[in-house]
Amino acid sequence: MPLVPDQDLVLFASSLADDARRISNKFFRQPHAVSSKSDGTPVTIADLEIEQHLRKAIGQRYPDHGVYGEEEGLTGTDTRWLWVLDPIDGTKSFTTGKPTFGCLIALLYQRKPVLGIIDMPALDERWIGVQDQTTLHNGYPCKVAETNALADATLNATTVDMFDPQEWQIFCRMSEAVRFRQFGADCYAYGLLALGYTDLVMEAGLGRFDYLALVPVIEGAGGCISDWQGGTLTFDSAGQALASANPALHAQALRLIASAQ
Amino acid sequence: MPLVPDQDLVLFASSLADDARRISNKFFRQPHAVSSKSDGTPVTIADLEIEQHLRKAIGQRYPDHGVYGEEEGLTGTDTRWLWVLDPIDGTKSFTTGKPTFGCLIALLYQRKPVLGIIDMPALDERWIGVQDQTTLHNGYPCKVAETNALADATLNATTVDMFDPQEWQIFCRMSEAVRFRQFGADCYAYGLLALGYTDLVMEAGLGRFDYLALVPVIEGAGGCISDWQGGTLTFDSAGQALASANPALHAQALRLIASAQ
Repeated sequence: MPLVPDQDLVLFASSLADDARRISNKFFRQPHAVSSKSDGTPVTIADLEIEQHLRKAIGQRYPDHGVYGEEEGLTGTDTRWLWVLDPIDGTKSFTTGKPTFGCLIALLYQRKPVLGIIDMPALDERWIGVQDQTTLHNGYPCKVAETNALADATLNATTVDMFDPQEWQIFCRMSEAVRFRQFGADCYAYGLLALGYTDLVMEAGLGRFDYLALVPVIEGAGGCISDWQGGTLTFDSAGQALASANPALHAQALRLIASAQ
Repeated sequence: MPLVPDQDLVLFASSLADDARRISNKFFRQPHAVSSKSDGTPVTIADLEIEQHLRKAIGQRYPDHGVYGEEEGLTGTDTRWLWVLDPIDGTKSFTTGKPTFGCLIALLYQRKPVLGIIDMPALDERWIGVQDQTTLHNGYPCKVAETNALADATLNATTVDMFDPQEWQIFCRMSEAVRFRQFGADCYAYGLLALGYTDLVMEAGLGRFDYLALVPVIEGAGGCISDWQGGTLTFDSAGQALASANPALHAQALRLIASAQ
């Protein structure tokens, strides 16, 4: 069994989100240098400054902990405790003035996420999920929706462009089975699912930093999250994620995926 | 030449947006009845209550003016001055707890939009565009970006599902020509374009209430907006819209569309 993070760790993680929020809000909607990475996705100086700052803070407080970040990769000698950081999730939103970008902070114990934060700097919303505890949204407990039939469920994904052709076909099969689908959410969709406002998020092509923080948030609100085959999301997962408001809905969604493959 | 709205009309239009904002924020993220229209899109009691309230307010102040709303259609005897209302643009966002829904208010004179408001109730942002005046965002003048090459431009659309197969193919050709594309914006993307944060919005399948308010906002910030053939958007347009940060970019985008057809 993974160790449960103690209160010191949770408060420290939340202070990391405070710092990241301050930096991203400093750059949001201001002229700033945006360059493109090798895969064509934008990276901003805010991304780089946040990751650098968080790495330094973790190194000072928990010098033994490993850190895995989107920009600098894996550092640290002991990776039993491992922080996984996405300074700005939704960089395209960030660079085009949309406040729906987030910051994702996960803490793994033996490669399994035991603490996750979704922070929305420009929207002043934060979800904190801790293994075996109720997820909090701005300090208040979160609860998923009771929607238990695909036909009544609302479905989200960030973009068409995250799916390969076969994944897109499966996503479209899911779309036909639900009430409606919408695009453009990034990590925010998972937070809204934890609050009970939406029912399904189905994504692919994710990096570790994109999905690990979501796991404790979704599970601590009563929801389910796994890969598209129902497997647990760990440091070594392949980048597909399915989040559902509750086990009944998750089972139906997994059956649909299995039958569509 | 269309008459330019006087200050009384502009202040009255802004007070309509105040009222709509109060009503939608009252229902946002609260349990509320959501039903489906014949085309499968959701409609909420907030939509209905806002349209009813705005129709009544217009009827009291300008009893001769016509009103065209998403929910109740066209009313009024003299349609020389015609209000076109979309109480909640982005109903799917609204019903799933995403604050990126808006309210669109347009005033037409002889079927041409001369005043437009994009209001974002949950984000506290409002754009007011008036023919021959500089567009204001929360009271401050707006200016579009200077991006003048497609390869440097960012492109937006609300969803894949607004395009027919041929339109989607053309949108994908545009996507290949730009820096990146993103989905999920609804009317907010046009506001962000007016502020200079993004460069292109290309959409289809729009209703009159979806595009008419955008015209004075975009043009008053220095941008261009037309149908996909470069034609002026009026009450009788077909529902395709292309908005660009400036004339140079608009010309390139229209050329690409023409060559892709």
